[in-house]
Amino acid sequence: MTKLKYFLWLKEKWQVFIVLSILNISICSAQKQTSDSVMIRRIYNMALTNGKCYHHLERLCKEAPARLSGSANADKAVELTFDMLRNIEPDTVWLQPVMVPHWVRGTKATCNTINTATPHQFNILALGGSVPTPSGGIKSEVIEINSIKELDALGESRIKGKIVFFNRALDKRIIDTFESYGGCADQRLYGADEASKYGAVGVLVRSLTLHEDEHPHTGMLIYKTEQRIPSAAISARDANTLSALLKKNKVMLDMEMDCRSLPDKQSYNVIAEIKGSEYPDEIILVGGHLDSWDNSEGAHDDGAGCVHSIEVLSLFKKLDYKPRRTIRCVLFMNEENGSKGARLYADEAKRKGEKHLVGIESDRGGFSPHGFTVDGDDEERKACLKTLQKWRHLFKPYLVHLFEYGGSGVDVSKLKGQGVALLGFIPDSQRYFDYHHASTDNFVNVNRRELEMGSATITALVYLFDQYGLNP
Amino acid sequence: MTKLKYFLWLKEKWQVFIVLSILNISICSAQKQTSDSVMIRRIYNMALTNGKCYHHLERLCKEAPARLSGSANADKAVELTFDMLRNIEPDTVWLQPVMVPHWVRGTKATCNTINTATPHQFNILALGGSVPTPSGGIKSEVIEINSIKELDALGESRIKGKIVFFNRALDKRIIDTFESYGGCADQRLYGADEASKYGAVGVLVRSLTLHEDEHPHTGMLIYKTEQRIPSAAISARDANTLSALLKKNKVMLDMEMDCRSLPDKQSYNVIAEIKGSEYPDEIILVGGHLDSWDNSEGAHDDGAGCVHSIEVLSLFKKLDYKPRRTIRCVLFMNEENGSKGARLYADEAKRKGEKHLVGIESDRGGFSPHGFTVDGDDEERKACLKTLQKWRHLFKPYLVHLFEYGGSGVDVSKLKGQGVALLGFIPDSQRYFDYHHASTDNFVNVNRRELEMGSATITALVYLFDQYGLNP
Repeated sequence: MTKLKYFLWLKEKWQVFIVLSILNISICSAQKQTSDSVMIRRIYNMALTNGKCYHHLERLCKEAPARLSGSANADKAVELTFDMLRNIEPDTVWLQPVMVPHWVRGTKATCNTINTATPHQFNILALGGSVPTPSGGIKSEVIEINSIKELDALGESRIKGKIVFFNRALDKRIIDTFESYGGCADQRLYGADEASKYGAVGVLVRSLTLHEDEHPHTGMLIYKTEQRIPSAAISARDANTLSALLKKNKVMLDMEMDCRSLPDKQSYNVIAEIKGSEYPDEIILVGGHLDSWDNSEGAHDDGAGCVHSIEVLSLFKKLDYKPRRTIRCVLFMNEENGSKGARLYADEAKRKGEKHLVGIESDRGGFSPHGFTVDGDDEERKACLKTLQKWRHLFKPYLVHLFEYGGSGVDVSKLKGQGVALLGFIPDSQRYFDYHHASTDNFVNVNRRELEMGSATITALVYLFDQYGLNP
Repeated sequence: MTKLKYFLWLKEKWQVFIVLSILNISICSAQKQTSDSVMIRRIYNMALTNGKCYHHLERLCKEAPARLSGSANADKAVELTFDMLRNIEPDTVWLQPVMVPHWVRGTKATCNTINTATPHQFNILALGGSVPTPSGGIKSEVIEINSIKELDALGESRIKGKIVFFNRALDKRIIDTFESYGGCADQRLYGADEASKYGAVGVLVRSLTLHEDEHPHTGMLIYKTEQRIPSAAISARDANTLSALLKKNKVMLDMEMDCRSLPDKQSYNVIAEIKGSEYPDEIILVGGHLDSWDNSEGAHDDGAGCVHSIEVLSLFKKLDYKPRRTIRCVLFMNEENGSKGARLYADEAKRKGEKHLVGIESDRGGFSPHGFTVDGDDEERKACLKTLQKWRHLFKPYLVHLFEYGGSGVDVSKLKGQGVALLGFIPDSQRYFDYHHASTDNFVNVNRRELEMGSATITALVYLFDQYGLNP
């Protein structure tokens, strides 16, 4: 062979090689795409025909309702979910001890007018962490305001000795109800603390809901100052009534509550994992919080998130899927009033040098899945959104279409700073605040298929991260 | 000026003119886009803060529940919605007379085993249009089958004298529950007619629902042959029980119903319109059906569609929007068991030579909006989908993302062949068949915000068609 001929031969071979390589890459890529969509279809099929999350939620709601941190029912919830997880037979199930606050509601929460022609009794519920009123109640004039800023404007002369009634309502025009909630939550969180600075003796906060009904919606408050005053949620309907009364005359209220804080108690995060076959040190975390408020079954908040997370392991086992990375389900204790479980988990992860690839939280209820929001450390956050955009078409058949930056969840957010992409599962939000922290957050208000669709969606995403990591 | 100079001057001017024109078009286009998104934002704001659809639905459900064609409550619904529409003060409100079937359920619908050790009583509900059983009931052996095809395979020797029990369940794996429903509806529609050909004496049909509860779901049947046998829906839970019994032994049933058909009655489509200021002859129709089954308040089916449609006119009036084209709201009578209202409406439209541009139907419940399906005559259907794709970004802030070919609705579909684009409003479908045709389809199971979001979404689309027609 002459040099020229050899060169031409080589060139030809190379061309063939290049063409074949390109063809090969295309075929492999197409095959991967197909096998991913087939696997995701299998995940949804299993979740919708043979899933256990609805049954798990029923047990959690009925056997361990009102599982506020420190309560006997919280202990029951730990035992129950530990058993549920063990029955799935992952590689490991364990309890991570954590000390949690122990606040109890007591038996009294009354609020009635004492100077109106017709007496009014209002539905109130102490905010989590509130101090009690003095025994015999507070008898005082009410002043209605709409923001903490207004409090500052009125000052001590107008506030001192009064019950401050924060009545700013959620903005109904906002489509994402979590955003409306976020626009009003400061009243509940800091209202009492701020009002106490001006000498207020008690606080009522309009329930943070878009559904104007008779149920008060509780939730935690935060005291920063020493001067602690009692604070309660008043139902939206009663808030409207009280506001209407105040437009006509001064209103004097008699308000009494006997809630109190007891010494911290030992509790647990409940954790289970399937060890990765190829990258056991890379952890994909999926979680919700096991504690709930004490006035409901805690079905949407966050029983749904717990059973979603348990279901990820359950579906993988049922489908005989062996993950490449470690899949860890974490049921955090004490999200509602202290986040002690999440803080401890994150501290321990750092101390042990664990490498979390992604952390996915489900804490927005058991409604039809819309998508995921992405937060976390900057580099991982960017990579994650880019990756999700690539996978968008895989979710289209399941009507999952939202992939954008946004908050993840109170629990997984504690991992920020450890090089983790943090994701929040986003279901339809329109009904969530009808039930949130109210006595109606019960199993009966969760739809089976909506819950199952959520489980399948989260599992499908975990599958993709497991296969390809954060930067496929 | 020399010729050359003049030419150059002209060229320069032309260039400037062209540049300015392009700029102008771009600016106008951008302004239009902005003004459209502003108008759509105003529509959603009004619907979510000051909308009337939820209140209208409450009145319709409470004052005229169980408004089956021919019933006194159907008459009430006509009067009530006529008044609702008149209160909105559109240009015209009128009633379109139509003769409708008048079938009544009677007072008896029982079904129990007569040869089992433990007696079983099953929850059944006559299918709409069914003939009664003979007085004293049918006492006969049951045979379970899963399809009409299987009926043909078994033949007269196995079917004659028996009660045929169609037990094919909806396929849970299908994401769009209307598709699952479509896969099973033949049993309910034609089961009795087909079974009668082989000498069956009665038919039971598994309720067409994904929620395995104790409620039978009714719905119409169609007799084509003269040999009419009685047919009833059995609750999904009882269908499971009956099927389990049949796996062990022969089962003899005693089934009795006293439903019957009365002579046709006069009823009405309720229609209202705002006349277009520029193209009064181009009609944009939006509608739902006013009749419902007789065993519920008909909240999702199709109270929601009625109040969605009424709300389009209401929101335009409240926003002081003067449409360019004619916007017509049609509440069709008798969709459930005959479609007499829709047929008459379409025939009359043709006779009068009315030009319908688009027909939008809402008959899939009052759940969170997902998008629209497009059907209709070929040219219009294609143009419409193309147009919807162009507008997609305007709906994104409201999480409305589905624009694809698919069925529109039973009522507007009767306009096919008149050069109309036909659209179906598509809300989340996961909960729909929990309530569909069951005694649980009540106002309490409709969420206010989900319903309002639907109204706003339909109104926004009507606004865009009104502004730009089918081919913008």
